[in-house]
Amino acid sequence: MLNAAETAALLRQFDQVLILTHVRPDGDTMGCAAALCAGLRRLGKCAYLLPNPELTKNCTPYFRPYEAPAGFTPDKVVAVDIATLGLLPDNARPYAGRIDLAIDHHPSFEGFGQACLVRPAAAACGEILYDVLAALGPITPEIALPLYVAISTDTGCFAYANTTAHTHAVAAALLSTGIDYQGVNKVFFRTKSRKQMQLEAAILGGCTFYDRERVAVLSVPLSLMEQVQASESDAEDLSSLGALIEGVDCAVTMRELSPDVWKFSVRTGSRVDASRVCQLLGGGGHAAAAGCTVEAPWADARDQMLAAIAQVVPDFCR
Amino acid sequence: MLNAAETAALLRQFDQVLILTHVRPDGDTMGCAAALCAGLRRLGKCAYLLPNPELTKNCTPYFRPYEAPAGFTPDKVVAVDIATLGLLPDNARPYAGRIDLAIDHHPSFEGFGQACLVRPAAAACGEILYDVLAALGPITPEIALPLYVAISTDTGCFAYANTTAHTHAVAAALLSTGIDYQGVNKVFFRTKSRKQMQLEAAILGGCTFYDRERVAVLSVPLSLMEQVQASESDAEDLSSLGALIEGVDCAVTMRELSPDVWKFSVRTGSRVDASRVCQLLGGGGHAAAAGCTVEAPWADARDQMLAAIAQVVPDFCR
Repeated sequence: MLNAAETAALLRQFDQVLILTHVRPDGDTMGCAAALCAGLRRLGKCAYLLPNPELTKNCTPYFRPYEAPAGFTPDKVVAVDIATLGLLPDNARPYAGRIDLAIDHHPSFEGFGQACLVRPAAAACGEILYDVLAALGPITPEIALPLYVAISTDTGCFAYANTTAHTHAVAAALLSTGIDYQGVNKVFFRTKSRKQMQLEAAILGGCTFYDRERVAVLSVPLSLMEQVQASESDAEDLSSLGALIEGVDCAVTMRELSPDVWKFSVRTGSRVDASRVCQLLGGGGHAAAAGCTVEAPWADARDQMLAAIAQVVPDFCR
Repeated sequence: MLNAAETAALLRQFDQVLILTHVRPDGDTMGCAAALCAGLRRLGKCAYLLPNPELTKNCTPYFRPYEAPAGFTPDKVVAVDIATLGLLPDNARPYAGRIDLAIDHHPSFEGFGQACLVRPAAAACGEILYDVLAALGPITPEIALPLYVAISTDTGCFAYANTTAHTHAVAAALLSTGIDYQGVNKVFFRTKSRKQMQLEAAILGGCTFYDRERVAVLSVPLSLMEQVQASESDAEDLSSLGALIEGVDCAVTMRELSPDVWKFSVRTGSRVDASRVCQLLGGGGHAAAAGCTVEAPWADARDQMLAAIAQVVPDFCR
């Protein structure tokens, strides 16, 4: 395991570098890759990002300018924010056995890569990249802007519990380069699609409460998705909605995948073990976030979930 | 005008201190007052906060422990986050002519106070208080927690455009004291009342679009407030809702104050000068946020607003 200075020293020896990102790419993997590429080029090196087939609209402006042309043959391969080789996109598979350096922050990192720098305490992989790039030279705006994307998106704009003093210290250094962080905040945190808005309105309007209003059930039937003509990305963040409601410590979101097939997402506070609840219905997950799938008409499926919660929570009130 | 070190030196000479906050108190004024009080007590001084008649539920845990007992007679009076004497609560009026020190960050600060420290570039008054308190001694968790409330609430948890490198640097210093900033984030940024949820659902569901969907109109009729039995605080943040919608750069919120009396809040991007729009209807404000009041039935009032926007924006599409 390397530290940031050792990683910087290793990168100084690299050239003809290809940088890999993970499937279902988020702002952290995309931003880290772009920032590292900018940093290596600043040192006069040839560096590119492997195109990611699932590149998202919001990340395109940061990622696209660094994409490798067809036929680029790398001498060195670096993976950023990738916990396991199983998370490589299909077009990255040929490089799975020859990754020279892996930089990651997942506790589940699987130890691939000739060399690696892994810090599970980092809220975002972007925080680690900052330390590495700062050891390579001054942080320019070209480096700072994608790093801000990486760090802000992985921390919910500094609101999630993973945010640390180091996260804010890095953000301070990035902002001091004069980047347009406001544009990033607007696009990633202060914009919703109209269809997202319509879905949220319908789902909140139809929300039902149980167990002295501590349990909220939010439903996303197929009919609603069709009525709004919503896409997957419009429905992406809905399962976090119920947990915002004051007094609710068990938010259940029921999404109809196909007629009468309901995918449950359960988000809970410390009173309710979501994992145990979902295990009773054939699913699983973590104590605060778990899921399962139930085949039944809506009311039946809901009743099965309420019965499972009642079985796990001693003070459930009918 | 003092700097932070001079202000700290002045405070060292104070004792028997009463600290004032502003009407309609927010996290910044409340958090600054509590932090200053904690800092002064740490120096062995007697210091209290003047009770604020409008103390909010979310701020109570930070403010209440420092409230002055009846009959406390101060020797020195300090105002925090108060731009003008007109913003003093009624019970602070007796001190209006004898404020020894004012610490503020509003560009509109009116220059009252024997001495003052004003920094309009600070996102929150809490950033200024941090510098003063750091000059007085180590920042303890008792000081850091209310300062985190002050800074995070005035920046929308570091998402608003007023956030600077200094804001993040101060946040880093505060978090390094080990405070429960997660509890603050949960209460202030990740909780909505059920009535707020119901209001949002109804308002988003009834949102209408104009001008190639760049203008959104959201309505809060009295009938809705009554139906949901919503209070003022439930309706507080609604005027920021429309600006979140993708593609919208002119969000108009119409709140019915009394039958057929509509208070407009207009939030805009750079294409639309909200101040000019609202001036046409007898109101005013800033380029990006302005307001006015129109007496007319709903459709009439809406049409007057659309006509005003059309007059100000050359490319308005009917």
